[in-house]
Amino acid sequence: MSLTNKQYRLAARPVGVPKDSDWEFTTEPVPEIGAGDVLVKNHYASLDPAMRGWMNEGRSYIPPVKIGAVMRAGTVGEVIASNSPDIKVGEFVSGMLGIQQYGKAAAKELTKVDPNLAPIENYLGGLGMPGLTAYFGLLDVGAVKEGDTVLVSGAAGAVGSIVGQIAKIKGARAVGIAGGAEKCAYVVDELGFDACLDYKSDSFKQDLKEPLKTGVDVYFDNVGGEILDIALARINRHARIVICGAISQYNNTTPMRGPQNYINLLVHHARMEGFVVFDYVTRYGEGVQDLATWYREGKLKLRNQIETGIGNFPSVLLKLFKGENTGKLLLKVVED
Amino acid sequence: MSLTNKQYRLAARPVGVPKDSDWEFTTEPVPEIGAGDVLVKNHYASLDPAMRGWMNEGRSYIPPVKIGAVMRAGTVGEVIASNSPDIKVGEFVSGMLGIQQYGKAAAKELTKVDPNLAPIENYLGGLGMPGLTAYFGLLDVGAVKEGDTVLVSGAAGAVGSIVGQIAKIKGARAVGIAGGAEKCAYVVDELGFDACLDYKSDSFKQDLKEPLKTGVDVYFDNVGGEILDIALARINRHARIVICGAISQYNNTTPMRGPQNYINLLVHHARMEGFVVFDYVTRYGEGVQDLATWYREGKLKLRNQIETGIGNFPSVLLKLFKGENTGKLLLKVVED
Repeated sequence: MSLTNKQYRLAARPVGVPKDSDWEFTTEPVPEIGAGDVLVKNHYASLDPAMRGWMNEGRSYIPPVKIGAVMRAGTVGEVIASNSPDIKVGEFVSGMLGIQQYGKAAAKELTKVDPNLAPIENYLGGLGMPGLTAYFGLLDVGAVKEGDTVLVSGAAGAVGSIVGQIAKIKGARAVGIAGGAEKCAYVVDELGFDACLDYKSDSFKQDLKEPLKTGVDVYFDNVGGEILDIALARINRHARIVICGAISQYNNTTPMRGPQNYINLLVHHARMEGFVVFDYVTRYGEGVQDLATWYREGKLKLRNQIETGIGNFPSVLLKLFKGENTGKLLLKVVED
Repeated sequence: MSLTNKQYRLAARPVGVPKDSDWEFTTEPVPEIGAGDVLVKNHYASLDPAMRGWMNEGRSYIPPVKIGAVMRAGTVGEVIASNSPDIKVGEFVSGMLGIQQYGKAAAKELTKVDPNLAPIENYLGGLGMPGLTAYFGLLDVGAVKEGDTVLVSGAAGAVGSIVGQIAKIKGARAVGIAGGAEKCAYVVDELGFDACLDYKSDSFKQDLKEPLKTGVDVYFDNVGGEILDIALARINRHARIVICGAISQYNNTTPMRGPQNYINLLVHHARMEGFVVFDYVTRYGEGVQDLATWYREGKLKLRNQIETGIGNFPSVLLKLFKGENTGKLLLKVVED
C-alpha cells in the first residue's frame, strides 16, 4: 500500500484557547498491523469539549494526551484490513483512533456499528458517547422522574439536545439554555423542549422566571460558570445537579470559577454529582439499545454538524468553545 | 409573680460580623401562659453558627428572625408552670425558646430531657441538635462505611468533634482540621481521631499529605472557603462531600466563595450533598438513642464550653466566628 495518513499531533500544552502552534500536522505511511489488529479508514472524527481537558497535564479520569502523540478523539470508519477473526474488512467500527485518516487497534478496542440502522456518523453522536452521556447522566446521576422540571445548559449541543429529549420521553418538563435565538428555536421547535432560554439575550435572567417558576428538580450542567450559579439559585428540595462539563471554564487562564450558590445544596437538601461516561462502560449496551429504539421510533431526533477536511481540525475544534455548533460537531476526515 | 425576663432581640440585620447595635437588650415581665402552654426557666442557651444565617433576610430553610423578635436559639431549662397534662413543673425540657431567661411554648414544641442520664447542657450539644447533625450528616448524607477516610473541618467544634467520634465507632479513619495546636491535641488525645491538622499552621498544606495519602472518602464540611477546595483536591472515587455549614463565609460582605475544585466531582464520580438537621425530624429518636448509648458506654466524649451571663450574649456569640470555642459553646442564662 502506498497510502499516506494525515494526522494531527499535540505539539504543546495550550494556555487558554488552543493555538495553531499547539498542533503539528503530520503525514506518514499508513501503519502496519500486528496479530489481532484491525486497520480502519476513518470517515468521521468526533469533536468534543472534553478534548480540551485531555490536552492538559495532570491527574484526571484518563491520562493526558502525550506531547507528540496523535490527538485523542472518537472515530467511526470502515475496516480495510483485519488480522482478527472477529471483525471483517468492509465492516464499520467506532473507536478512539484519534485525529487521523487511518488508525489501527486491537479488535477488542473497537465497536461494530450498523450502517443500516443509522448513518454511521450518528455513532459518534446520539447513538455514541454523547448519547450515552446524556442517558446515564440524566437517568442514573440525575435520577429523573415523571413530573420533574429538568434544566439543561448547552441544550443545542451534542449532549444537551439529547438530555432534554430523554427528559420528555420520561414524562418530565425540559427547559433548555442555549446561545442565540436560532439555537433556542431548534431546541423547542425541532426537539420538543418545553422552553429554551437564550443566555446571550439581555433579558435572560428575566426570561427564565416563568419557565422555572416551579423550580428546578434536575439541572444538567454542561457549562459551569455563572449559569451554574443561576441554576443553583432556583433549585427545589432534593434537587440533583448533574456535573457533566464546564465548557465556559475550559480555556480559562485564571482559576476556574466555583459555584458561589453551592450553599443552596444545604438549604434544599440537594446534591451535586459528577460523572464521565466511561464510568458506565459496563452498561453501554443497555444505553445504546434504548437510544436506538427511541431513534427508530422517531422519539429521539439527532442532528450532526459536519465540517470537512482534516486540515481544518484546529479551527473546527474551536467552534465548540465559541458556541458555533448545533447538534453534534463532527469532522469528516475521509477524502472523497 | 414579679419575675422579670431579660432578653436579646434582633435590632438590625447585620452587615458582616454582628455589632452591638444589631441587638437590643430588653427586660419585660415573664409571660402569662395559655391553655396547653408550659413556662420554662431557661438554664442554658445554645450558640450555633447557623444563628448567623437566621439573622439574614431572604429565603432559606426556616424564616429569618424578625426585627424586634427575641433571637432564636435552642434552650434547655426547668418547667416552672404548666397548663399541659403532658409536662409537669420540675421537669426539664429542651426547645427553641431563644435568648431569654424565661420562655413559653406549647407542650408539643418541647422535648423532655433526663437530667439523670447526662447533665442537662448536653441536650444542647452531643445529645441534641449538634449531635444529631453529626449523626445524620455522617451516616445518612455521608454514607460512611468501614475503612473510609473521613475528613472533618471544625473538628474541635460541637458538630465536628462528634463526626470524628462516630466515624471511629463505625470503623472509619477520622482526620480532623482545627485551628491551633491546642484544639488539635484535644481532637487526637481526648477524642481519639487518627490525626488533626492545624489550618493556622504555616505547614498546613504539607502536614495534610501524610494523613490523607490514601485520599478522602467522606469530607464533612463545616467551614467552606479554601478548606473545602483543599478537601476537594484530595477526594477518592465515589467520595461524598457533606455540606453542613460554611462558617468561614457567614460574615462575608462580599459574595460567598464557591469551590473552584468542584469539577473534581466529575473526575471522581463524587457527590456533594447538603442538609440541615431539621430534615431528619422524624428520625431524631433513632439518633438520640444511639448517641445516648455511645455516651453511656464511654465511646462518645462530650465537652461544653459554658460562658456565663445573658448580658454577654453578643460577645460570646462572636467566639464561634473567631474560633474561640472548643466543643459546644453554651451561654448560661440562669442566674444563681
